[in-house]
Amino acid sequence: MIPQQIIARKRDGEALGLEELHDFLTAYLDGAVGDDQMAAFLMAVYFNGLAPAELDTLVTLMMISGEMLERRGDRPGPRVDKHSTGGVGDKTSLVVAPLAAEMGMVVPMMSGRGLGHTGGTLDKLESIPGFRTRVPLDEFNGVLMRIGCAMIGQTDEIAPLDRRLYALRDVTATVPSLPLITASIMSKKLAEGLDGLVLDVKVGRGAFLSRLEDARELARAMVGVGTTRGLSVTAVLSAMDRPLGRAIGNALEVREALECLSGDGPRDFRDLCVELAAEMAVAGGVAAGVEEGRARATETLARGGPMERFMRLADAQGGALDPSRSDFGLPIAPFTAVVAAEADGTVAAIDPLALGYGVIALGGGRTRQDQEIDPRVGFVLRVEVGDRIARGDPLAVVHSATREGLAIGASAVTEAVRLAAGDAPAPLPLVLERVEG
Amino acid sequence: MIPQQIIARKRDGEALGLEELHDFLTAYLDGAVGDDQMAAFLMAVYFNGLAPAELDTLVTLMMISGEMLERRGDRPGPRVDKHSTGGVGDKTSLVVAPLAAEMGMVVPMMSGRGLGHTGGTLDKLESIPGFRTRVPLDEFNGVLMRIGCAMIGQTDEIAPLDRRLYALRDVTATVPSLPLITASIMSKKLAEGLDGLVLDVKVGRGAFLSRLEDARELARAMVGVGTTRGLSVTAVLSAMDRPLGRAIGNALEVREALECLSGDGPRDFRDLCVELAAEMAVAGGVAAGVEEGRARATETLARGGPMERFMRLADAQGGALDPSRSDFGLPIAPFTAVVAAEADGTVAAIDPLALGYGVIALGGGRTRQDQEIDPRVGFVLRVEVGDRIARGDPLAVVHSATREGLAIGASAVTEAVRLAAGDAPAPLPLVLERVEG
Repeated sequence: MIPQQIIARKRDGEALGLEELHDFLTAYLDGAVGDDQMAAFLMAVYFNGLAPAELDTLVTLMMISGEMLERRGDRPGPRVDKHSTGGVGDKTSLVVAPLAAEMGMVVPMMSGRGLGHTGGTLDKLESIPGFRTRVPLDEFNGVLMRIGCAMIGQTDEIAPLDRRLYALRDVTATVPSLPLITASIMSKKLAEGLDGLVLDVKVGRGAFLSRLEDARELARAMVGVGTTRGLSVTAVLSAMDRPLGRAIGNALEVREALECLSGDGPRDFRDLCVELAAEMAVAGGVAAGVEEGRARATETLARGGPMERFMRLADAQGGALDPSRSDFGLPIAPFTAVVAAEADGTVAAIDPLALGYGVIALGGGRTRQDQEIDPRVGFVLRVEVGDRIARGDPLAVVHSATREGLAIGASAVTEAVRLAAGDAPAPLPLVLERVEG
Repeated sequence: MIPQQIIARKRDGEALGLEELHDFLTAYLDGAVGDDQMAAFLMAVYFNGLAPAELDTLVTLMMISGEMLERRGDRPGPRVDKHSTGGVGDKTSLVVAPLAAEMGMVVPMMSGRGLGHTGGTLDKLESIPGFRTRVPLDEFNGVLMRIGCAMIGQTDEIAPLDRRLYALRDVTATVPSLPLITASIMSKKLAEGLDGLVLDVKVGRGAFLSRLEDARELARAMVGVGTTRGLSVTAVLSAMDRPLGRAIGNALEVREALECLSGDGPRDFRDLCVELAAEMAVAGGVAAGVEEGRARATETLARGGPMERFMRLADAQGGALDPSRSDFGLPIAPFTAVVAAEADGTVAAIDPLALGYGVIALGGGRTRQDQEIDPRVGFVLRVEVGDRIARGDPLAVVHSATREGLAIGASAVTEAVRLAAGDAPAPLPLVLERVEG
């Protein structure tokens, strides 16, 4: 195996031998192929893609480069997880994990941190005082068996090849490649030893894929990889042309998730949680169809069990929540300000990108993986697309760590909330499409 | 300057700001941009090219990353160099440098080593016992002033950015990119502080560019870069659909060059040397036109001055040649064998690639930059394209370090020399085109 020849063949759009691709990736893990060579290879993949068999080889090597989550313990029920490609205001995992567990599934959830304008479940969880997202796999399994769900970050043991490649892609502008994204997501999910998986592929300006065709292509590629390996996978393409729910920012989103678990909270957010839990139930075989899954998820959520289960989960992982307080004991930003509409009109659009970058500007997000963030800051919207409002009506509340931040946050809100004189075009339906294995 | 953003813009085919490209390259020299990031950038350049202004920025930074050859000393005459993109059997530099010096030019020649199927002038020179191609710039300048020509390898002081990028391109399959090749060649030549430059761009199966359009594009790009900077540059597109001359292999080629300097040797080789010297004379302003240049070069070569000058050059750089011996005291392979034709026919083609790789198989070339080579081995052809031959006629002599090598060499000759029953198609004209500034 001569690394240059493999890079050259990918560069020239030729098919790679699977054995030589295997050797190339193994040599990278061993250090015989350097980061420079891998970076050139990844850029060639960006331009020329990966054939299905090549993608499959990459997924396999990423998966077996580390440990697989063992299926230990005697808790009954199918192992099912949900993964989102990331959006603004997407706190569904916090609701869906305990909801699915309450419906009889076992949910070993490994999540990531936020980067750029999208948030990450780990950052949200860590806004709960004391919550540990790094726990040994033994302890993780213990929580999973006791409570039916557990939530951690990707550990060093899981898919180290993916972790190395992701870090390299991050600094070499090779992140936005559909086969590389597919391999990164699916290798980790396959290492969880699942029976079923639901993928939430976001579409729109606030997602990393704004075009429906691209989102559909990614969904199909991921579903294909999982299905080939005997995993029951369904992908849901959901709207990210506006934020999901009304809270954006880590602690604010946890609060909104807890409100949802209490039977309250924004309608669109609750609907998506129900939809994803229903799909998980179908993928895991605990519901015969999506309709039945929806009914069961709605009923289960209403009965309060998922809220109690989330409290036990938080407690098991060291998190201190106080359900008797309206803020649940979450950290609160010292400065808040209401941003008011400057004119009458109809809310034509709420740009998730402007609000996602607004959170970064307030110190609650990161542009590099090693940055510290402030969990308290962010936005709570007071309007949604289609609302008719008058000048002076509140558009959103800015939560800031500093007084100066309030103006920064206000300008993000003003940029994000677009007013039209007449009727506004309808936003995307919450769920656009469904891709089955 | 955020490296990922610059890589992403090149990846997406957007124009780079010249200042940010400057900062990116400078940061690479300083270590703030890593080899992984530069490798991804170079692969993106492979796919999307460089705009003229971007190429110009790259050339400038390569050039000023190191020292320029100072124009010291009082030897009169224009400073003119010749550079070839590399071919099989191309030993023109050994004749052209002393010939141009004899015609009144000053020739500060910096050459490279062979890699892959093409040879390199440095390796040829080093087959002369004792010849030093690494000499301090002071000494180089001394030889240049005394003799009018001097021949060395690229030193650490000249264009270190090019050297680092070339080493990186070599292992990341990003060598064959026209703008990167243009920048690499022109930055070094511009650092020589020349008045005139002649580029010999090889075309055909034995060149790294086999298509005339590509060779023409490279020639135009290089001439453009030089002309912009006030250098008088001409490019000659010359045939590499067959080897140049009859000798292939380092010491064998030096011997053929010395035969040419003695007024003997293959016609095509001598003609190309005269053509290139004529173009140098025009570029340097010592001849009014190519016709006059050709006449002067032919006459100068016939008078024997260039041979004497090459002997002085070799002596000044430590090389021991013995003009009284027919082998000039060059190292000789211990085993030789004549390869005979297996059938009657016309020589339809002589594949330079097969013979170039044959030299590697005999131990006289390298596939990695750090390999040792045997200067003695190679081939001397006994036929040329268009010759009518009978079964049993000699096609070539193989020179080998081992008895086993003779069979390896013979099979390379048999593969290279293609016989046709009837008339053979005409080979490419020796000089296909000329590109002027």
